Amino acid sequence: MQDELRIIPLRGIGEVRAGDDLAALILHALAAQQLELCDGDVLVVTQKIVSKAEGRLIDPQSVEPSAFAQQIAAAGRKDAHYQEVVLRESRRIVKMASGVLITETHHGFICANAGVDESNVGGGGLITLLPEDSDRSAVQLRAAIHIQRGVTVAVIISDTFGRPWREGQVNVAIGVAGIDPLVDYVGVDDPYGYTMHASAIAIGDELASAAELVMGKIDGVPVAVIRGYSYTPTESSAQRLVRDPRFDLFR
Amino acid sequence: MQDELRIIPLRGIGEVRAGDDLAALILHALAAQQLELCDGDVLVVTQKIVSKAEGRLIDPQSVEPSAFAQQIAAAGRKDAHYQEVVLRESRRIVKMASGVLITETHHGFICANAGVDESNVGGGGLITLLPEDSDRSAVQLRAAIHIQRGVTVAVIISDTFGRPWREGQVNVAIGVAGIDPLVDYVGVDDPYGYTMHASAIAIGDELASAAELVMGKIDGVPVAVIRGYSYTPTESSAQRLVRDPRFDLFR
Repeated sequence: MQDELRIIPLRGIGEVRAGDDLAALILHALAAQQLELCDGDVLVVTQKIVSKAEGRLIDPQSVEPSAFAQQIAAAGRKDAHYQEVVLRESRRIVKMASGVLITETHHGFICANAGVDESNVGGGGLITLLPEDSDRSAVQLRAAIHIQRGVTVAVIISDTFGRPWREGQVNVAIGVAGIDPLVDYVGVDDPYGYTMHASAIAIGDELASAAELVMGKIDGVPVAVIRGYSYTPTESSAQRLVRDPRFDLFR
Repeated sequence: MQDELRIIPLRGIGEVRAGDDLAALILHALAAQQLELCDGDVLVVTQKIVSKAEGRLIDPQSVEPSAFAQQIAAAGRKDAHYQEVVLRESRRIVKMASGVLITETHHGFICANAGVDESNVGGGGLITLLPEDSDRSAVQLRAAIHIQRGVTVAVIISDTFGRPWREGQVNVAIGVAGIDPLVDYVGVDDPYGYTMHASAIAIGDELASAAELVMGKIDGVPVAVIRGYSYTPTESSAQRLVRDPRFDLFR
């Protein structure tokens, strides 16, 4: 039985720069907040600070836009340099309309503009790219926290994605370490003995969404601690949440 | 600034029957758990018990399958009576493949099988339909709680929906009362002065997802209380989360 959860915002991380030790920054902010990490805590960390720490920032003016990027830019609101960066971060275009690109990233995630983002970067004309390997980012952060603090947590790297049919973005998991983001009830009996056929729950995405509620877009809270969630620590991957193209009706 | 949230599972609701007073059942379970509702609490209630209380149950054998329902059934795993019910609950078929129907419900929600569900019903061959007007269900529950207990809460009626591209279902809001499920940051400056252009967050869905983490599919926890979430009480609707077809790239 799942008990009460706490979703705790972590403040005071401050500006993150390329090469920063994210584990150390997080542990320092936790200490300042007099919060002690526990085994089993789930740490949700926004992609933005992971990308910054990993130096995944780029000045779009430094890339030469292709003819195709120029064509996309002419139809929309973003400039050709930006569109060129988006194309380079994509392995497939899922949908194009009036300058909006929904693409599949090299990780297999499908989102607007391949996750390339201009907000919350902090001037200089830089934009952020998604971490090159967001599972690896999560694994490294989890290991660093274990080494520096001796606790075994789960880590979720999150980003806000739009979705078809529904308004608004929701926070989802793009990198995972120490927790299976997909809980499968297929074949399990409900309390009435009905065997469920299609009931896997994307708890990785739900944990990311829960964390977003204390983060906000403009509050400068890039990390949340989720305490009290029951799970079995395990090696896993956000790839568990990427639908196999063979079974995707909306590819 | 958003403070810590608590996500509290509500146990002991027990079996819900057509005509039951859901507000009374919830308040009784809260009392048994020695939990006092507060102004501002967000109550997330699964569609299943709302549908049961509203008598939105049907024996599929009682409907005559059309030729089209029989054709769908022949391609899939569900029977023709079930498919007939799904068709009657739909106003548009978004996608059909190997007996799987993704449809638009009469409310405008797009989901598998129009939300018609066989699990957690409790025998007799009955299946549940979504509430006829899930916003109205939320408004009524909110009003009944105010009358019976004198507190002003927000209510979210939730259901687990699959989504394109990503594995697993997540809990989303299909009925809303007392809270705006969409927080719009468009035009707001980020901490660095960058004005955001496409940043509305579907907090209604995120609250539903957060609640699911303490519900589980087989734990018999159909209600969660979210305490500590900052919002301005307001009349609103889950229709805020339904994308205008004119702006939907994946219709």
